[in-house]
Amino acid sequence: MTDQTHQLRGQRPTSLFTDHYELTMLQAALRSGAAHRRSVFEVFTRRLPEGRRYGVLAGTGRLLEGLADFRFADDELAFLDRQGVVDDTTLAWLADFRFSGNIYGYAEGEAYFPQSPVLQVESSFAEACILETYILSILNYDSAVASAASRMTSAAGDRACVEMGSRRINEEAAVAAARAAIIAGFTATSNLEAGIRYGIPTLGTAAHSFTLLHDSERDAFQAQVDALGADTTLLVDTYEVEQGVRTAVAVAGRALRNVRLDSGDLVEQAHWVRQLLDELGNQDTGIMVTSDLDEFAIAYLKSAPVNTYGVGTRLVTGSAAPTASMVYKLVSRQNDDGEWIDVAKASTGKASYGGRKHAARRLNAHGFATAELVGVNQPPATDANDRALMHEFVRDGQIVSGWTGPEAVTRAAQRHRDSLAELPNVVRRLQPGEAALSTFVDGMG
Amino acid sequence: MTDQTHQLRGQRPTSLFTDHYELTMLQAALRSGAAHRRSVFEVFTRRLPEGRRYGVLAGTGRLLEGLADFRFADDELAFLDRQGVVDDTTLAWLADFRFSGNIYGYAEGEAYFPQSPVLQVESSFAEACILETYILSILNYDSAVASAASRMTSAAGDRACVEMGSRRINEEAAVAAARAAIIAGFTATSNLEAGIRYGIPTLGTAAHSFTLLHDSERDAFQAQVDALGADTTLLVDTYEVEQGVRTAVAVAGRALRNVRLDSGDLVEQAHWVRQLLDELGNQDTGIMVTSDLDEFAIAYLKSAPVNTYGVGTRLVTGSAAPTASMVYKLVSRQNDDGEWIDVAKASTGKASYGGRKHAARRLNAHGFATAELVGVNQPPATDANDRALMHEFVRDGQIVSGWTGPEAVTRAAQRHRDSLAELPNVVRRLQPGEAALSTFVDGMG
Repeated sequence: MTDQTHQLRGQRPTSLFTDHYELTMLQAALRSGAAHRRSVFEVFTRRLPEGRRYGVLAGTGRLLEGLADFRFADDELAFLDRQGVVDDTTLAWLADFRFSGNIYGYAEGEAYFPQSPVLQVESSFAEACILETYILSILNYDSAVASAASRMTSAAGDRACVEMGSRRINEEAAVAAARAAIIAGFTATSNLEAGIRYGIPTLGTAAHSFTLLHDSERDAFQAQVDALGADTTLLVDTYEVEQGVRTAVAVAGRALRNVRLDSGDLVEQAHWVRQLLDELGNQDTGIMVTSDLDEFAIAYLKSAPVNTYGVGTRLVTGSAAPTASMVYKLVSRQNDDGEWIDVAKASTGKASYGGRKHAARRLNAHGFATAELVGVNQPPATDANDRALMHEFVRDGQIVSGWTGPEAVTRAAQRHRDSLAELPNVVRRLQPGEAALSTFVDGMG
Repeated sequence: MTDQTHQLRGQRPTSLFTDHYELTMLQAALRSGAAHRRSVFEVFTRRLPEGRRYGVLAGTGRLLEGLADFRFADDELAFLDRQGVVDDTTLAWLADFRFSGNIYGYAEGEAYFPQSPVLQVESSFAEACILETYILSILNYDSAVASAASRMTSAAGDRACVEMGSRRINEEAAVAAARAAIIAGFTATSNLEAGIRYGIPTLGTAAHSFTLLHDSERDAFQAQVDALGADTTLLVDTYEVEQGVRTAVAVAGRALRNVRLDSGDLVEQAHWVRQLLDELGNQDTGIMVTSDLDEFAIAYLKSAPVNTYGVGTRLVTGSAAPTASMVYKLVSRQNDDGEWIDVAKASTGKASYGGRKHAARRLNAHGFATAELVGVNQPPATDANDRALMHEFVRDGQIVSGWTGPEAVTRAAQRHRDSLAELPNVVRRLQPGEAALSTFVDGMG
């Protein structure tokens, strides 16, 4: 691993974010000798969540950052030994483990479809096997959030979406969710850890408790404006909204940035609050709405004079699809003669294609995407306009620069914008439907 | 914080798992002087997830463990200063922060209902305010998983449920999910980090990739048995199940612990696989099923000769309820004369009750629960059989022993069993319905 790897603050060893069976399979494969067979594993999903038109890949940067800390040090080895998880031969192998293979895949922020080979790990079976759980945990959660977030920012159009869901999901998942939301077009997060770790802009308003702490709503607003300036967001629905707005304007004056509405009929309120703000001379004060918003509520609120959406629960839980259902499958491996053998499970109802994949997005003369092309063991036949989708992230264990750290988040957000701009207009519809692009695997569709 | 606090391995500072506004509210309250007003915040949910009869509290031990590391050290302070999140006065206050208040609440593993005061924080407003996001992140996710897990173990009856969902959710959330599952009656997890951190039993089987890596299914089974012994679980559906079972028995013999089925019609397969195993002389070999199980699938599979359920996606995503929807509300605070003032938001459709809560479960003469009693500013009127629900977790900043570490997980699992045994039989029904117990807040119901 090179020193280009972004150093996460306080990163712990990541090697035990791993299922027990990855290490017992390693032990059995070391014993049979097959552990050293060169292998290709691929991450893909067989289907998008019900009714979704596309998915958005996120998490690749995080997993590359964590790869450097995927190490079995004394504590981990002692635990595995004490619990009898694996034998001494395997412990010795783990003690020396450094990922030395290659990793390829779609850029973070890229749209994906069923069978898109979003990540590909090429190494010995042993090295690729033990990364499975860690890779899937990251890509499944981060992509679930990014995919939901993308529909929300798409529904919001040029209005800002702010990520505020930390309190509804595991504390570390919340940091990953903030990062994924930014990739998919959110402008800021409430999560401070995401700020320190990834340089993501953070912001906040105030809670009802802050108003209730003070002897009156006016006292609370005055305290907030005294401390934070008039260019702040006042929460106006603790008692009675009309009086709340009037008090907010009386205290903060014209410079008041936003009022926040967090309950009731937001469309109806936003209309008359906008009118009231205008009458009071606060044409430049915006309206921020929160309260269990999702992409459908955001779309519905497009008819109301809202400036900013604060999105929480439904974002960090993937808006009914809390995991991206990605799997990690062995698709090819060498035999003892060093020949590559394509492999796939012969399972009922679980479509898998053996063989190493290549992928491109078919673009027409106007630059619009028309299909997802997946080639097996060779690049798909492409036209001049088509765009290759696989990038190199790790070569011989060395992380390629540009794919980790705050820089990766910025790049991924740009990739998300560019990728969506290419897709058919149907992706901006929230109604359930089929994937926006059909995936053609070696021409089989 | 006392040295009784369980030391989490490699724990990072937890203080920035916090929303931006907690710290700006702190700044404003420090400036207004209200920050020092003694306050009571409570965690509760206004409703259970759609159709659920009860919830199961989990996460309290984790948050007590993390409280010791809720510190603002140089890195955190420098970040907050650099980003201009708060002013110098607030930074100085944060640098000295140690939680010095009291925390009370329901025991981990306890069943809860709407308005149950599952956690209560009593301290200055300042101290309680900044803990909000961290507390809610933990309790909302862990309780969502425990609540789903409880329905699964209830449906499984005396058959074992094993947690195998790590790959479907954020890598740290996966560890919390394993812990919550064990509290709600799961017998083991696949997650090694949960093993090292909480002493939870781990186990594993094998993946299709392991079979595909080898030149034949027989080679793969032989490799696994050579390395792990015949007392192992062989995955028999990579190619053709009947042949897989025959090969598994041929290789492992009578000592084969389990065969695992991961696809197809599990009920139908389990019946004939059981028959085949018996015919082959393997009466003691069990059948483990996996493949997107949830509480409904588990209940359906009760008619089949299954021994162990491996549960993944639906467990770690809360089986359609990925967050417990708990909120953290200021319910009482002192005024400048030191008098307690009950407070609550006057909001549309968001029921809150001001005042500090006390809680007991009403039990009849047979020890069965009949109601959730919540008293406001005084204990509810109780009968001799009733059971008080609030425990002391932190007194004057010192963590009370017994509520953290591996010990807390074991105690919580026992509490879960005891709590469920008291509840009406309706909790064991999976059909949607009302909460199994009505909550009476000061007799208001």
